[in-house]
Amino acid sequence: MNEKTGLPGYKGEALEALKRINAEIGDLIRITKDGTRFEGILIPRSEYGDDKHVVLKLKNGYNVGIRITPSTRIEKIGEGAKPAFSPPPPPEKRGDLPKVVVISTGGTIASRVDYRTGAVRPALTANDLYSVVPELAEIAQIEAKILFSLFSENITPKHWRQIAEETASHIREGVEGVVIAHGTDTMGYTAAALSFALQNLPVPVVLVGSQRSADRPSSDAATNLIGAVKAAAYAPFAQVAVAMHADFSDKTILLHKGTKVRKCHTSRRDTFKSVNAKPLAKLDLETGAITMLTREFKERDPKRELVLKPKFEEKVALVKFYPGMNPAVLDWYVDSGFKGIVLEGTGLGHVGNYCFEALKRAVREGVIVAMTSQCIWGRVNMNVYNQGRDLLALGVIPLEDMLPETALVKLMWVLGQTGEVEEAKSLLTTNFADEFSPRTLPEKIGE
Amino acid sequence: MNEKTGLPGYKGEALEALKRINAEIGDLIRITKDGTRFEGILIPRSEYGDDKHVVLKLKNGYNVGIRITPSTRIEKIGEGAKPAFSPPPPPEKRGDLPKVVVISTGGTIASRVDYRTGAVRPALTANDLYSVVPELAEIAQIEAKILFSLFSENITPKHWRQIAEETASHIREGVEGVVIAHGTDTMGYTAAALSFALQNLPVPVVLVGSQRSADRPSSDAATNLIGAVKAAAYAPFAQVAVAMHADFSDKTILLHKGTKVRKCHTSRRDTFKSVNAKPLAKLDLETGAITMLTREFKERDPKRELVLKPKFEEKVALVKFYPGMNPAVLDWYVDSGFKGIVLEGTGLGHVGNYCFEALKRAVREGVIVAMTSQCIWGRVNMNVYNQGRDLLALGVIPLEDMLPETALVKLMWVLGQTGEVEEAKSLLTTNFADEFSPRTLPEKIGE
Repeated sequence: MNEKTGLPGYKGEALEALKRINAEIGDLIRITKDGTRFEGILIPRSEYGDDKHVVLKLKNGYNVGIRITPSTRIEKIGEGAKPAFSPPPPPEKRGDLPKVVVISTGGTIASRVDYRTGAVRPALTANDLYSVVPELAEIAQIEAKILFSLFSENITPKHWRQIAEETASHIREGVEGVVIAHGTDTMGYTAAALSFALQNLPVPVVLVGSQRSADRPSSDAATNLIGAVKAAAYAPFAQVAVAMHADFSDKTILLHKGTKVRKCHTSRRDTFKSVNAKPLAKLDLETGAITMLTREFKERDPKRELVLKPKFEEKVALVKFYPGMNPAVLDWYVDSGFKGIVLEGTGLGHVGNYCFEALKRAVREGVIVAMTSQCIWGRVNMNVYNQGRDLLALGVIPLEDMLPETALVKLMWVLGQTGEVEEAKSLLTTNFADEFSPRTLPEKIGE
Repeated sequence: MNEKTGLPGYKGEALEALKRINAEIGDLIRITKDGTRFEGILIPRSEYGDDKHVVLKLKNGYNVGIRITPSTRIEKIGEGAKPAFSPPPPPEKRGDLPKVVVISTGGTIASRVDYRTGAVRPALTANDLYSVVPELAEIAQIEAKILFSLFSENITPKHWRQIAEETASHIREGVEGVVIAHGTDTMGYTAAALSFALQNLPVPVVLVGSQRSADRPSSDAATNLIGAVKAAAYAPFAQVAVAMHADFSDKTILLHKGTKVRKCHTSRRDTFKSVNAKPLAKLDLETGAITMLTREFKERDPKRELVLKPKFEEKVALVKFYPGMNPAVLDWYVDSGFKGIVLEGTGLGHVGNYCFEALKRAVREGVIVAMTSQCIWGRVNMNVYNQGRDLLALGVIPLEDMLPETALVKLMWVLGQTGEVEEAKSLLTTNFADEFSPRTLPEKIGE
């Protein structure tokens, strides 16, 4: 931290290099290194940063950290508009743009560095958004709402309910789309929850996160946000989706179906993957074009009337099976009044036969027991082997190609709608939000 | 089933077509369809098969099912050697080949159709192997051992111990390599277990399974077995590996490190993936060439003395965190005398703060609590966010890029070696069998 110099976060060699050219945060800087030229606005570094990199925000909204060596050429080419002070566009211009609400729940994407102090602020006002990502002013009239400010691992089904209710109230007021800024850790679970809680959607609901905060080199916060707001404002679908980077390039944002998406890498920007389904759509950041990747989708229709079903039952467990698992834990769930158990079985949907007695008892006591696969990809099929057929006979419900995480959320939602076992089973196996994909074609002749 | 005609499993149109040309199981058949010609040995179908496909075993060992339509041309081109009766190669020839033991534990790969009766037999004798996969006779002198005949979801740490002991006894007798036929469902867990239990290996130990039984169209049993036996006999490494198809083609078998491999699809033949590591080697089925894919491996050395450490502690739990998880289940594990808990946290290694008290208590009572990520890919890093640092302060041990399944097996193994907490922590964070990969290089300048 080095606030006096107007270069917060910079130290050592990087700080010296910037001082030599009288640079300040917000200045337009050109760095030439190994034949490559980078031009962008100088942004502050985090206090945990090293002393060797200078971070520029490039024109495309992407941040890049460049290591300064003795042979690196660094120039100040303009006192660029300081991002923190760039004014929002004049109201008369913004009035023509679609209305989008950005609901902030916390997470890396909702944190921003204050360009003047270098401090991290945990929330987004509309002006914060416009100043950090000026492109947004050209896309939509944004209303920013801070619902809460939580790391997403602390978000629970109670919060899903609040997010669903908040989203519904804005949709009923007539926004063209809703963006929900969310930590990435459990964004897949929340996306599934909203897919069930918000039925008959008239407009898109787009969750967005970032893997790197805006003050870090190569942050994906701005580009993901641009993609999410564009999708909320203009996408032709009216479903719950997750907007995140498609790959390492800065060209494409994928919009994944809320029930089929999973965080699959601890740190990569393309961590979210559609599992057992194609993404809903892709968005080209350069042209702004949104291309649907599936023919079957629910079209945007502002006249459609939203149905809100935000209740979730928390007494539902996700149990991953493993060799030597003690089945007594299943008894503990039953004894503790749990109403549902989602198993992450092996392969096509199996658990060791030493768990059968406990599962039988659970079913007998009215607990809904459902089967998914820890393979993640592929489809449960309990008709292939005897032991799968035994599990079906015990009353275990196979959930086809549903993600274990989505299955957990769905069972919580189902048991929030009904306490009646047969009705719950029927809801659980009904396709509400593309949580089941149609069977895929055989891989090869004869299969 | 239609035993009288010598065409077990065939019915309807397929049966009629075969009868017209007087075909019997074992005959060499040519089928021409849509310009493609298939030539192979007619094999029986499973009793669950449809009435439209004829299944041929092609020359490359691969089975294919071809749908018979009125325009399909089908010819008998030879009364090929009936596979069930093909004699093993003469002993004088086999004496020069390396000795490999095939230990059968069960699973799809260990089942075979008896060509005469169409019945499925659950075990492999050496002659069964030679007759189903005649190529094996050219590769190695095989000793076949039936250890047990279990669906792999029924395999527990007690069986890991038996497999390790059986493997060790054959290695000490001087075989050139060991193949372990295993159901695919939990083959990754067993591979990890053997990686820890069999230290200082002089020769390769190769686990192999199949996704389709030998009597089904496009079975991968023969090709996987050929790959596994070749690797056991000739591979330059002396580590535990899993041999399975690399892709949908029939050209390459990958040899994955036992600690870095995971079943990632319920049904595809290329279901096993190396996670956070490259596979150890690949084997070209056409040329037989084995190419190492990593420079760092333990070389085969028959003089090296195996160290057998086959004990596993079963009182270890794998707990996948999810939003709204009831932390009382952690208390239940502590109260039930569990000695270790592996958490599958979110993202970089997080759980909700509502679990902190229960984790604190677990650590206080001497339970080893370790953190992995449910993202599967990537590396746990609990220093990035405050909540990760809180977990470290509570005594939760971060397990870098280790797979959750491998972490579970390793903690079971560690607690089988020592009851002393500090020693257990030290063993848990020591790299024994490539369960930790070196940190990867940054994705981009400045990261």
